[in-house]
Amino acid sequence: MFKTNHYFDGKVTSIAFQTETLPATVGVMAQGDYEFGTSQKEYMTVTSGSLTVKLPGADNWVTFKQGETFTVEANQTFQVKADVESAYLCLYE
Amino acid sequence: MFKTNHYFDGKVTSIAFQTETLPATVGVMAQGDYEFGTSQKEYMTVTSGSLTVKLPGADNWVTFKQGETFTVEANQTFQVKADVESAYLCLYE
Repeated sequence: MFKTNHYFDGKVTSIAFQTETLPATVGVMAQGDYEFGTSQKEYMTVTSGSLTVKLPGADNWVTFKQGETFTVEANQTFQVKADVESAYLCLYE
Repeated sequence: MFKTNHYFDGKVTSIAFQTETLPATVGVMAQGDYEFGTSQKEYMTVTSGSLTVKLPGADNWVTFKQGETFTVEANQTFQVKADVESAYLCLYE
């Protein structure tokens, strides 16, 4: 009933669901480096662990910890380092 | 690489992972009523939506919203109503 998705040889795994307002996923990332592309605006909240992120057009890496959120516009790519095995909630606008 | 689990005909779906300190799952629940049993002490945090919970031995139902956590000791059963499609993070001690 819920769709699971596996990316990067399963190092990133997510479950799609629907919040009251927006489609969403919860997921986990193994420690490692990833590049993601967006097709919609994404609001990504770290729910466990720590993600160090290079946002589109940014020169610097910024670390987001549990409870912190970053936003990526549609049709962008961004880079993520999972500093430890981490979990996230992503909302799609 | 990450194990996914499906309960209640897939109405509850989770992904197991490892935090820096404890084993954990992230999961989603369809709207509905569930009874869960614990084998370890569980710390359950609502990350999206709202869960109304009758804890072991409790007379009353209590609603936990996004960002709120409840704890269940090992070898207990507890009841959960997912008021809307909801997501959670569960740590196992």
